[in-house]
Parts: sequence; C-alpha cells; structure tokens
Amino acid sequence: MDYRIEKDTMGEIKVPADKIWGAQTQRSKENFQIGTEQMPIELIQAMAILKKSAAIANNKLGKLSDIKTNAIVQAADEILKGQWDDQFPLVVWQTGSGTQSNMNVNEVIAHRANQLLQNAGEGERIHPNDDVNKSQSSNDTFPTALHIAAVLKVEDYLLPRLRLLKATLDDKAEKFKDIIKIGRTHLQDATPLTLGQEISGWVAMLAKSDQMIVQNIEYMKELAIGGTAVGTGINAHPEFGERVAAEISELTGKHFTSAANKFHALTSHDEAVVAHGALKALAADLMKIANDVRWLASGPRSGIGEITIPENEPGSSIMPGKVNPTQSEAMTMVVTQVVGNDATIAFAASQGNFELNVFKPVIIYNFLQSTRLLADTMKSFNDNCAVGIEPNKEVLDHNLQNSLMLVTALNPYIGYENAAKIAKKAHKEGTTLKEAVIATGLLTEEQFDEYVDPATMIYPNVK
Amino acid sequence: MDYRIEKDTMGEIKVPADKIWGAQTQRSKENFQIGTEQMPIELIQAMAILKKSAAIANNKLGKLSDIKTNAIVQAADEILKGQWDDQFPLVVWQTGSGTQSNMNVNEVIAHRANQLLQNAGEGERIHPNDDVNKSQSSNDTFPTALHIAAVLKVEDYLLPRLRLLKATLDDKAEKFKDIIKIGRTHLQDATPLTLGQEISGWVAMLAKSDQMIVQNIEYMKELAIGGTAVGTGINAHPEFGERVAAEISELTGKHFTSAANKFHALTSHDEAVVAHGALKALAADLMKIANDVRWLASGPRSGIGEITIPENEPGSSIMPGKVNPTQSEAMTMVVTQVVGNDATIAFAASQGNFELNVFKPVIIYNFLQSTRLLADTMKSFNDNCAVGIEPNKEVLDHNLQNSLMLVTALNPYIGYENAAKIAKKAHKEGTTLKEAVIATGLLTEEQFDEYVDPATMIYPNVK
Amino acid sequence: MDYRIEKDTMGEIKVPADKIWGAQTQRSKENFQIGTEQMPIELIQAMAILKKSAAIANNKLGKLSDIKTNAIVQAADEILKGQWDDQFPLVVWQTGSGTQSNMNVNEVIAHRANQLLQNAGEGERIHPNDDVNKSQSSNDTFPTALHIAAVLKVEDYLLPRLRLLKATLDDKAEKFKDIIKIGRTHLQDATPLTLGQEISGWVAMLAKSDQMIVQNIEYMKELAIGGTAVGTGINAHPEFGERVAAEISELTGKHFTSAANKFHALTSHDEAVVAHGALKALAADLMKIANDVRWLASGPRSGIGEITIPENEPGSSIMPGKVNPTQSEAMTMVVTQVVGNDATIAFAASQGNFELNVFKPVIIYNFLQSTRLLADTMKSFNDNCAVGIEPNKEVLDHNLQNSLMLVTALNPYIGYENAAKIAKKAHKEGTTLKEAVIATGLLTEEQFDEYVDPATMIYPNVK
Amino acid sequence: MDYRIEKDTMGEIKVPADKIWGAQTQRSKENFQIGTEQMPIELIQAMAILKKSAAIANNKLGKLSDIKTNAIVQAADEILKGQWDDQFPLVVWQTGSGTQSNMNVNEVIAHRANQLLQNAGEGERIHPNDDVNKSQSSNDTFPTALHIAAVLKVEDYLLPRLRLLKATLDDKAEKFKDIIKIGRTHLQDATPLTLGQEISGWVAMLAKSDQMIVQNIEYMKELAIGGTAVGTGINAHPEFGERVAAEISELTGKHFTSAANKFHALTSHDEAVVAHGALKALAADLMKIANDVRWLASGPRSGIGEITIPENEPGSSIMPGKVNPTQSEAMTMVVTQVVGNDATIAFAASQGNFELNVFKPVIIYNFLQSTRLLADTMKSFNDNCAVGIEPNKEVLDHNLQNSLMLVTALNPYIGYENAAKIAKKAHKEGTTLKEAVIATGLLTEEQFDEYVDPATMIYPNVK
Repeated sequence: MDYRIEKDTMGEIKVPADKIWGAQTQRSKENFQIGTEQMPIELIQAMAILKKSAAIANNKLGKLSDIKTNAIVQAADEILKGQWDDQFPLVVWQTGSGTQSNMNVNEVIAHRANQLLQNAGEGERIHPNDDVNKSQSSNDTFPTALHIAAVLKVEDYLLPRLRLLKATLDDKAEKFKDIIKIGRTHLQDATPLTLGQEISGWVAMLAKSDQMIVQNIEYMKELAIGGTAVGTGINAHPEFGERVAAEISELTGKHFTSAANKFHALTSHDEAVVAHGALKALAADLMKIANDVRWLASGPRSGIGEITIPENEPGSSIMPGKVNPTQSEAMTMVVTQVVGNDATIAFAASQGNFELNVFKPVIIYNFLQSTRLLADTMKSFNDNCAVGIEPNKEVLDHNLQNSLMLVTALNPYIGYENAAKIAKKAHKEGTTLKEAVIATGLLTEEQFDEYVDPATMIYPNVK
Repeated sequence: MDYRIEKDTMGEIKVPADKIWGAQTQRSKENFQIGTEQMPIELIQAMAILKKSAAIANNKLGKLSDIKTNAIVQAADEILKGQWDDQFPLVVWQTGSGTQSNMNVNEVIAHRANQLLQNAGEGERIHPNDDVNKSQSSNDTFPTALHIAAVLKVEDYLLPRLRLLKATLDDKAEKFKDIIKIGRTHLQDATPLTLGQEISGWVAMLAKSDQMIVQNIEYMKELAIGGTAVGTGINAHPEFGERVAAEISELTGKHFTSAANKFHALTSHDEAVVAHGALKALAADLMKIANDVRWLASGPRSGIGEITIPENEPGSSIMPGKVNPTQSEAMTMVVTQVVGNDATIAFAASQGNFELNVFKPVIIYNFLQSTRLLADTMKSFNDNCAVGIEPNKEVLDHNLQNSLMLVTALNPYIGYENAAKIAKKAHKEGTTLKEAVIATGLLTEEQFDEYVDPATMIYPNVK
Repeated sequence: MDYRIEKDTMGEIKVPADKIWGAQTQRSKENFQIGTEQMPIELIQAMAILKKSAAIANNKLGKLSDIKTNAIVQAADEILKGQWDDQFPLVVWQTGSGTQSNMNVNEVIAHRANQLLQNAGEGERIHPNDDVNKSQSSNDTFPTALHIAAVLKVEDYLLPRLRLLKATLDDKAEKFKDIIKIGRTHLQDATPLTLGQEISGWVAMLAKSDQMIVQNIEYMKELAIGGTAVGTGINAHPEFGERVAAEISELTGKHFTSAANKFHALTSHDEAVVAHGALKALAADLMKIANDVRWLASGPRSGIGEITIPENEPGSSIMPGKVNPTQSEAMTMVVTQVVGNDATIAFAASQGNFELNVFKPVIIYNFLQSTRLLADTMKSFNDNCAVGIEPNKEVLDHNLQNSLMLVTALNPYIGYENAAKIAKKAHKEGTTLKEAVIATGLLTEEQFDEYVDPATMIYPNVK
Repeated sequence: MDYRIEKDTMGEIKVPADKIWGAQTQRSKENFQIGTEQMPIELIQAMAILKKSAAIANNKLGKLSDIKTNAIVQAADEILKGQWDDQFPLVVWQTGSGTQSNMNVNEVIAHRANQLLQNAGEGERIHPNDDVNKSQSSNDTFPTALHIAAVLKVEDYLLPRLRLLKATLDDKAEKFKDIIKIGRTHLQDATPLTLGQEISGWVAMLAKSDQMIVQNIEYMKELAIGGTAVGTGINAHPEFGERVAAEISELTGKHFTSAANKFHALTSHDEAVVAHGALKALAADLMKIANDVRWLASGPRSGIGEITIPENEPGSSIMPGKVNPTQSEAMTMVVTQVVGNDATIAFAASQGNFELNVFKPVIIYNFLQSTRLLADTMKSFNDNCAVGIEPNKEVLDHNLQNSLMLVTALNPYIGYENAAKIAKKAHKEGTTLKEAVIATGLLTEEQFDEYVDPATMIYPNVK
C-alpha cells in the first residue's frame, strides 16, 4: 500500500495515499475497529453544512480571510454534493463526543481546501483546527450537526413519506365510506361501522403522529454552536452562535436558532429523546395499522378475509400459491427496531456528566436509523400494499348480517339486560337476532326491522 | 362473612354486605386475583368526574331525569371527596378495556344514588348500565378517564414540583454565579466555568422538560367520550361528546375537547406514548442532575468534593460517620423505573386491534406511576438535598488553579499545536502551565498572565 | 399522636409510640416521601431469614451470646410468621444500597428482642448495629436478601403456577390430539396439523421456559454475605459468609452458597439480569399463547372461532351478551409490564460504581413484581380460561376442508410450480382444490384422493 | 443495464445479467427498498451450512441424486468461502419468515450448481425449491440458520474476545494485588481494599458472564429443521431433522440437535431472548467496568486519578493536550445499543401467531449486531486501554492515608456509635482520625496504631 505521513499533536502516522483524511481520522480508524456501523452520511453532511456556515460567520466577524473562507466553503460544498463520501470511514463506536468525526470533517475539508489553494501564498494554508474548526469545539459542533441531521431527515425524508401513506389511506377511507361492516372489539364481534370509518382511524393515527412529530422536531432546531468546549463559548465571538445558526437557516431553508443555554446544549439530549418519542408513537400506530391490514386480509378461506391486498411475490418456499402480507411484516419488524432504538437513545441521553454527554454518536445513529426505516417502510407499504387494498364485499356483508351485536341498538328500547338475554339466546340456539327477539315476544318483527338497521348504527343517534 | 345477593346478565353472585359495589365488580375481584396493583385512585376519580359530567350532559339533552341526575352527581361528588375509596378493589390486571373498573364505578354510583333515592318513586331507580353508563361504553369512558387522570396528575401534581426544584436550582445558579471552577468533559479537566453556569445547565434541563411536557400533555386533552362502543357513537346523542367535554372542562378548569376522530381515540394511545416520552426526557435529565450532584459532592476526602449536600441520615450500617447522597440515589432509581415504564407503555400502545386497544389499564398504571414518582422524587430531592447545596470554595479554587486546560486560552495566540505541547510538558513534568510556557520561551510571564485569566475564560471573546 | 424518642448517630427523633422501629427507619420515612411502593414484604422476610442465620453463625463463631442469639432468632421468627408486617413502612425509593431497610429490620429485631430480654441483665441489651448487624453491612446483607427473596419467589411461587398451566395445556394437547385443523402461517391458511399439536407448541414453550428459569435462577443462589462494607469482609470472621449461607440453606431447604468473589457480589447484578431475562422469555411465550387463544376463540360469528373459552363475566357495558377473552387480556398486559421491568433492571444493574451498585431496591422491586404477576396471571388464566378450552369441531372441520394449502401434499408428485398453479386456479375460481386439479388434467380424482389426505399431512413422510 | 429473464410462480422478471440470483430475490429487492441493513452475512453462511447438510441428508435418505448433491455441496462450499458474498443483496426488512433470504440462497445455489452441471444431462437440473429446498420450508430453515449463526458468532467470535479481556484484567489484578487503596461506596470514601481486589471484581463479572453466556447459548443448539411448513414435518422424511442436525454438527464441530417440539421451534424464540439476556448482563457489567476505568483515570489534576490509561489520540479539537477515556466511551455506547437491541428482540419474540413467528430477520439482525459489537469493543478496549492500565501510586497512597473510613476498624473495640463520633469530629475539624481519637481519650495512640492498619482491613478478621 502507498502511504503518506500525516501528523498531529501525538506524532506521525501513515495514511493511505489515496485518502485525504488526516492523522486523527487515521488514528480513530485504527483504534476503533468495532462493528460495521459507519457514522451516518447524514451526520457528515450536516457537519459540512455547519463547517461552511461557520467559515462564513468567522469571515464576517473578521476572523477568517476571504481566500480561506472560499476554499473551505467550496470543499464543504463538494462534500454536500457527495464527492467525498468515501473519505469518512469512521465508525459510530468512537469517542462519545464525536470528536473524531468532527476532526475527520475538519481534516478532509482542510486537505481539500489546501488542494484548491495550492497556488495561494504560504500564509493561506488551511489548518484543520485553527481554521476549519475556528471558534468551535467538537463539543458544540457534533450536537449541532446531530440536530441538523435529525431535523433534515425527519422533515424532508420522513414526513413526505408519512403523508404519502396518509393520503392513500384517506382516499381509501373516502372510497369505502359507505361499505358497512361488522366492528370488532376484544377481537369479538361488535356493533357495525363502515370500512371507511375503520380506515379513517388509521388516517387519524398518521395525522396525529404527523402533528406530534412536527411539533417535537421543532425542539431540535436549537443549536449548541457557540458553546465551544464547555458551554461558555470560550474562543468564540459572542455573536458567533447566532450568526452560524442564521447561515445554517439560510442554507437549509429551516429556522434554526442558537440555543439559549449552551450548558444544556452540550449535556442534555432531552430534545432528541422527545422527538424520538414522537417517532415511537408513530411506530406504535404503524404496528396497529399493519396488524389490522394483515388480519383483515387473513385467509384466504379460513381467516377474516374482509379485504384483499396485492400479491407481490410467492409467499412460501414449500406451500405453493400462498400469498403473505409481507409488507405488514416488514413494517412491524421496523416497529420493533424503533422501540429498541428508543430505549438506547433514552439510556444514552441519561448518562451525561458535568459539562458533556459522551453518548452522542450512538444517539444520532439510532435516531437516523429509526427515521430512515420508518420512512422507507411507509413508502414501501404504500406502494406495494396500501394502494391495492380492496374490500371483499361478499365476506363483509356476510359477517355483518350474521352478527349478534346489532342487538346493541335495542338497548334504548328494551334495556341492556333484555338485550343481553336475546343475544345469548340467539348465540346458544344458532339463530338470527330477529328470530330470537320475536321468540321472546319483546318486540314485533316490524319493530325489530325499524330499530335494528345497520345503516343507522354507524353514527350517533339524536333520539 | 355477611353477604347480599347481586345479579347481572350472568346471574347471581354474593357481595360482602358492607360493600356497595355490584355483581360485575365482584366477578372481576374473584376472576382476577393477579398481583397487588389496584387500579390507581386517580383513574377512579377521573371516572367520577366523567360520570358526573355525563349525567349532566344526558340531563341537558333530555335523556336523564333531574332526580336521577342529581343523585348521580351527588354520588360522584362523594367519590371525588374520597368517601368511597375502599369501594374500588379491582386490580390493574383485568379486562384490557377497563370495562370492569368502569362497571365498578357505575355500580358504586348506582348503589349510592339509590340509597340517596330510597324515598323516591319506583321509577327513579338508578341502573348501572342504563343510567350511569347512559350514552357511554367502557370503550370510550375508560380512555376518557385515562386522559383526564394523566392531565390532572401531570399539570397539578408533577409540574408544581418540577418548578419547585427548578426555582431552587435557579436560586443556587444566581447565588454561585461568580464562583469560577474547573470544567469537566469526558470526566477530564477542561476549561473553566462558574458554578452558577454549571447549575444553570440543570435549570435549563428542567425548563426545557417543563416546556416539552406542557406541550405534549396538551394532546391528552382530546377525549374519546362520544365514541361509545366502536367509535361510531351508537346510542349517544351527536352532541354528547362535546357536551361532556365541556362539563369536564368546567369541573377541572382545563380545556378538554371531544376527539375529532373517535376511531383513533379508542384504538390509539399515541398521545400517551408521546406525553410519557416527555416524562422520560425529564427522567434522563434528572439522572444527569442527580449524578452531577453526587459526583460533585463525592468524598469527603478522596472524591471531587466541590460541593456539600445535607446530611440527612447515617449513611452506613457498618462504616460510622458515613454520609451518602441518598436523595440522588432515590432519584436515579426512579429514573430507571420511568425508563422501564416507557417501554411498557409503547409496547402496550402498539397492540391495538380493529376498533379497540385492550391494554388501557397497564398504560394508565405506568403513566401515573411515572408521574407520581418523578414528582415526589423532585420534591424530596429539593427539600432534602438541593436547598442545602453549598460550594466547597477551598476545593473549587484548588482545582481551578491546578488545571492544565487553561491552556486553551492560548490557542488564538500560539496555535492549537503549540498549546498542546505546553500542556503535555506541564503534565509530564508536574509543573504549572505558566512554568511550562515560560520554559518554552513562547510567551513571557506578562503575556501569560494577560492571556490566561480564568475570569475571562467563562464567556465568549470579542477579540 | 403519642411519641417516644429514639436516637442514632445523627441525634434524637420522635417515633410513634405504637411502632417498634427506630431512629433510622423514622428518618427514612420522613426523608423519602416518594411514591406508594413499599419495600416488598418478600425482601423483608428474606432479610429476617438472613438475620436469624447471621445470629446463629455469630453465636457459633463465639461472637454473640446465647441469650442474645435466642432473642434475635425469636424476633426474626416472629417476622417470618407475619407478626410484624406493619413495622416495615419504608418505600423502595430510598438509599440505593437498601441501608434503610436493613436498618429497619435491625431496629425492629433489636426492639423486639429487647422486649423479650426485658428481664435479662443490662449487659444483654441488643443493639441494632453491634448485635443484629454484627459482621454485616447493608452492602452485603441487602444483596443477600435480594437473592434469597428472588429464589424463593421464583421456585416456590412462580414455578408451581407455571407447571399448573403447563399440565392443563398438556391435558388439552392429549385430548385434542386427533382433531385435525388448518394450520396458519403469516395469518394465512397453511398445511394442516392437529389441535393437539398446536397446543403442544404452547406446552413446549412453558416447558422450555421452565427449564431456562430453573437453570438461570441457580445463579442467584450465590450470596454476598461475608463481604461486609466493600467486599473485603472487614469486621467479619473468614468463615462467616459460608456459615451463614449454610444456615440459610438449612432454613430454606435450598442450596445457597457464599459468592466466590464478594467484590462482584456487591457491585454486579448480572445474575438478576439473566434470571429476569428468563422471566422475560416466559413473558414473550405467554404473549403468544394468550394471543393464540383469543384469536382462535374470536367471533363468535365473524372471527376464527375454532375454540370456545369460558364466559366469566359480562363483556361489555354497552353491547349486551358480549363475551370477551379477558384472561388473555390480563395476561398480555402483564407481559408488557414484565418487558418494561426488564428494561429497568438492566439499566439499574449497569450503574454500579467502584465497590457498590446503589440501585438494589429498584431491582428487587421489579424482579418480584414480574415474578408475582407472571405467577398470578398463569394461575388465573389456568383456572378461568385454559381449563375450559374446547374445540368448536364444526368450524374446525369446515376450515380444514375448505383449505387450499392441502395442495402442498402434491409437491412430490407434480412439483412446486404445478401445485402453485392449481392453488391459484382454485382461489381465483372459488372452487375446491380437487375440482381445480381435475380440470387441469394433472391428476385423476383417485390420485388426488390418495395424495391429499389431511390425516397423512400432519407428520413427516417416509416416502 | 444488461438483463436476463427469470421466472417463478408469479411470472417473469428481469435480473441483472451479472447476478446469479433468481426471480424471488429480484422481487424482494424491488419490493423492499427499506433501509440499508442487509441480511447479515453470518446468517447467509449459516444457511449455506444448512443447505449443504440438507443435501447430504436428502442424498443419504435416497431423495437426491449423487450428482445433484455434489453440485449443491460445492455451491454451498463456495458461499462458505466467501466467493458469492455479493449475491445476497436482500435487506432485513423483508417477509418476517425470512422466506426471501431462504429463496435467495436456494436460487444462488441452484444457479451455481447448474453452472457446475452444465454438461450433465437434462434430468440433472437443480431447482431452487424442489432440490435445494427439498424437505424444507423457510419456516424451518430460517430459524435453523438463525440458531446456527448465533451459536457460531457467540462461541467462536465473542467468547474468545471476552476471555482476552478477562485474562488481561486478571493479570492486572494479580500484579496490583498488594496496592492498598481507599474503597468507595455511594461514591463516598469507604474502607480500604487493594487495587487488585477491585479489579478482581471486574474479572469476576467477565467470568460470570462467560459462564452464563456459555450455558444459555446452549439452548440455541436445538434446531427447527425437520418441521417444514408448520412444524408437522410434512414433505420431509421422519429422520430428516436429526440427520441434518448431525451433518451440521459434523461441519461445525458443535453439538446441534433436532428440536424436540417443532411447533415450538417455529413459533417461539425464547432461546434467543434468554441468550441475548446473557449478552445484556455482560453489557451491564461492561458499563460498570468501563465507568470505573474512566472515573479512576479521571483528572489528570481535578479528578480521582488513581490509575492512568494509554493516550491513543488527541482528545479535544479545542483543548490542546487533553486525553480522554475514549475506549470506555465506545464501550459504554455499545452497551446502550445492546440494551436497545434486547428490547427489540423480546418485543419481536412475543409477536408470534399460530404456527409461525414472523419477526425472525429482525431478531437475528439485532442478535448478531450485539454479539459483534460486544466482541469488538472488548477487543478494542483490551488492546487500546486495559493492557496499559497502571496505578498512580502517589495518588492512591494519598487518598488512603487521608481517609476517615478507616474508623470502621474500631467498631469491635469502641462500638459503632463512638466510632461515628470520631469520624465526624475529624471531618468537622479537618484532622486525621488518629488526632480525633486521641483527643476524645477513647484510645491511646498505641491502641489506634494497632487497631487501624489498612493492611489488616482488606480481608476478614478471625478475632
């Protein structure tokens, strides 16, 4: 292998000649051979946004020359375009402040910027710490990038996919709004509702989750930048934090601000806990939706079978012709992952000491994994399942007509206890409700027909 | 034992003569001999608020006579005053819709109301289902009570205690705002800050949690009432849900509304998941605060010892004179409980099927336990620890003067790499920073004294 | 209120005259007004076993007089008989070493022993620390009692109830071993099995959990006693730990030993984590069993309805005649609780520092709650549900005959791809398999009847 | 792009020409674009071991020709050698039975085997289902491979690394066995022990975890193979399961057996829950060890500073010369991940229905991630931290001499209460214990020196 020598305050170290990272990246690569989980590219990109913004802010504050600023900005832009994706090899399981990934970005930007400045004067050499990291510390840059990455991924990646599925289900709810079916509580037959109403409950889940995610991700728009090493802002200009936040807002089109209390910003990840809590609530809702879909589609002959879903692949390697609710299965597995990630994030967030929480990489790794998986599984479920949901009208109607719980409509006329007697009688004797009612003499057939009409049992009653 | 005979649609059953509950309560008591965790009294009280409000709403809608309404209202009021606390013996581990606790409240109110109406006409007998439960189902009353209980406990019990602790710490932050001390990141010495700044981070945690809890508990002010059996509102008047919500708001002084989509309200507990997520974020913050306090108070001779905390009890049964940070310990144990409860709630919330989620009792049990424990431990920590936190100035000053990380102030003058060399030299040789700087000849003593002044290192630098 | 004055090393304090606890108990009661969860009585009882055993061991080692020993033993025996249950008022949320509950037991025993010794000489006064706690520290007594309580509760309370349910299900499996029914995978119709085979899977779950619990609880039979304050055994005789373990074994009839490494015994709760992990595995199995039961019993008309379960109570407060699978619901709620408790225990177990883990009370509280709830819910499920499970033969047979997945039996004759075509054809055309096969001409009716016989599809095939 | 046409029972589909997978793999790739987590290669390798063993077993049972068997075996061997790693592109988030990864392996083996057989007769074409999957179903192959992969990873990858760290720490414990130091409980000064004793507690944690992992992984050596579609073994020879288990044992050198109850084997993952519980217990221990190391190494000037650890990289991007306990940080982050994974696995394991649990891929993904991360972080911690732990004797000795808790040695001579008074007096007046004792007149200087000798306080006392 071909190497060059890089150095840092610990001394010299060999770096592969085709890589532009520096000594600290190389040390981390060698010292942390743990797992396969690389620092998520979304975090690296967020760091690039931050470094660009910081350079501009430093420049405006008279702390960084135009030449250096331009070089740093261009290098950061190249990272944002994905040109240097292979230069960020570090794993999640490194120092808990993310120092090494901060330095990785600093080193790559410095190296690339120096390439761009190769014809500039000697005084215009970019130093990873003194220039790219100017007015910054890993302790404020990493949590800043963590927040930026989380906000972008949730707002620009997850929410559109959530809304896609919501829209599809909303269409279905509208389309099936007149299909009356049996309700089920405790898995037992209950009073009727329409298929559209049933699906509207799913839509409401997604709408509520949407609202709760939108509101809770807002907390992550406060940024640690400006706090530097311990939150005091040492070595940074008093306006630095707010100026950088403004640049980031400009670049991303989102309203980021500088955190009011930087000691909190370095040590607490309560905002990430709450925002991921909203993702977990979405996950809980998706579990319910995916389960409902697969139960309603169960069968084809010995299940509930009230809806059909698309057949996307052979279901079984041994049972020919089997079709399984695989999109529901992928989605419910994602849910279990998100629930586990939530436990990891809260545990990690609780373990700060003094001026720093050193569990930042594991927090953002899990946060982004949850976000990505939820988004992807909603998109996949939408495209490969939800769009193809169709009612199985024959089954729906058979189940409705067969139900004993229509008796509930008689409560106002004959009281709960008499109604219960009738339901039990019909169940025991295997008859219809009407037959049982008439046999008891409590109501005439005409009264029964008037009172027990599924079409009038699907909304509140004025009378 | 002395018994009377009660009956329901299943038949007759013996009930202890000194109890006013009915047949269904008795059945549940016998059929669910599981654990010792009774349905929380807060849930029972919330149910009483609901039953009172429902009676009034039914009355206004012309569905319940004035006589019956008054009797139900009085019985509910007596429950709210705590007169009948021993009449709600059911455990959490019952039917998952909470039907049996709904019936327990219906039965106790009916029985008590009938006592009140003993001289009224035969037509004015109160029936648990037909009157007390009129226009309602367990499926909408239990989640309604769940939300009411959660909101009241969080807003009226937890938040005041959180704010008490926040105020105490805020006082401390103000009082100690000029005491400069060493910072610590990664448990290692870092640049200085003031003790007041350090504590301000804790205050900011509580303030942020306060804000996030306030906003997220808001979601729980939407009530399921009006949905009845499956969400359609069968057997209820179209205005019933909103009217009951208005009565509840009147009674509690909080703004409850009728949920927009009742299918969601019966099947999803996403609001509870999110609101408890905010409690968990508070818990994570409390873990950090309690840990900081005990570490800062560690010693007395071989720990960090920068603060002292009150001595409340003998610390050890074998080591005489030992004083331990017991309030921190109680608080951190509560944190682990809340984290576990959060896992339970999310799991439970994910398991709804069709028109109902039948994990409601376990959700409210855990939600209320978390709320109560967090509130109580903050109050206890406040009264028995936080109010007595005092700086140990001798230790604080010794640690500050001894620190090598003051070298950070030199970055702008001699660069990161030279500064690193000086810190390492001083560490290796056991000298002060100043001695090391002068020995290198990089700065004069005067320059050092000018640049390295802890008092100027605790805020951002304009220059 | 009537008080007497007690004192400890902190000074004097008032104790209610009708209570026999001492100063440290009283302080804890006042300083930790947190929650309602008292230290579990099982832990107190385990502590009494330990104190009795320690007194005997101290006596045999010549460190405690016969008179004192007898008095302590008698006082401990009275606690074990439940005579003093109301003398242990402390909550779980106290000091994390359980010191205050250790002292509570020391104080109650000392007080009671001194009552017994009121006519003895002045030299025979029992001191809570110097006598009852002799050769001990909270740091080794509490984890010892924690282990004893866990072992007793699991072996003597949980396992018998697990085996009761296992026996009931085993009977059912045997009884229904010839009832052939449709299998279901992915909730979709699959190849047949017998109802007895299906239930045998549940039995195997309980058997496997039984085995895994038995093996993993074994780790908790190693006791910390003898480690005293930090694990070195200071102030205890070298043989003390082993002698106490022997006495405890004698008293309980179980084989407890003295832990090989006491530093581990005070700081690690890995054994509790693993043992509770086995309880969690049981919980996961119970979730599956309880779900299968309620799904198989779903209906009565629009569900799967292949089995019936007992009707124990009215199911709905609004829908007359509804019968719900309430025992399954209680059981599945318990499962979610156990899963949360597991998270709490692992978190707590991870937070030890140096010579002690101070999360012991929360660990045992959760451990015992899980054990009790699992045991009780299995008993309740057994008595009120499992014993009454009966097959609904009509439905079972209808589903079986109707199934398309019997086609799997044709794989060896016509290949997977042809078999798939036939299943799809029958599904699309709504015919039976046989009709579809004959229509394709791939097999004759005679061949079909020979190859496709559910009775031959429920075990492996030699051919 | 260059394509060829593949087909399955759903019809035709384009597959990239340079890939040897088939139609079902391609469908899954297109239908499940969810996340970036590929099915772990360890699972694919385990599947290859299984396919090879199944072919051999089928051959011996006369169900597969020698020619076909040899071709399948060779293809599987090539997978095991890593030749086809890029042919398994499917993600974790697919059908929950792992059917698609089973088919991926079947298709790749069939395709490759057919290449090997290109000159064989037409009758010797290998079919993915009829030949490679002969006598098998995804429902039994996937859980079989899941168990194999878990066992191999734990026994051959994790345990050696655990033992490496244990050996290193054991060396340190031995080396430092005479260095007496202050103990700490509740973070407060306590009675002394040796540094070797303290580290022996860590060694005991690893030893206990080792033992518990070894015993609990044993449960995973029971294999589902032979159960086929629903556990009955349809389409498999009665001896098939045991024969395959024997072949797998032969190939792996481990003792695998055929599960006694195949219905359990397809629906329950209690063994994985328990085995991962043992990994979680290890994680909890590692959290404690890593925390102890970083706290003991904290400082360098204002922390505890009793040990030093290697300097592996610059610690801070802003504070020059800072050295951080980064290996502890990576390890503690891994711990939080494992705790989250445990929650995921238990949740997933609980969600089986009827004859199948369809959360298998997410279970093995998390199980293997935990195993790999724990193994890697122990190795990294060992090599980059533990081997370099050295005592800081000056600090250790200073802390010991300064301690007040040596007073505990006086309990047997002057009683707990007098001892407490002395400790408090010394603390209050800032004196040594000896000065305080003498001032009280309770003991002479000679007595104090005799009784209070740290060297005699680190083990039990005969007297």
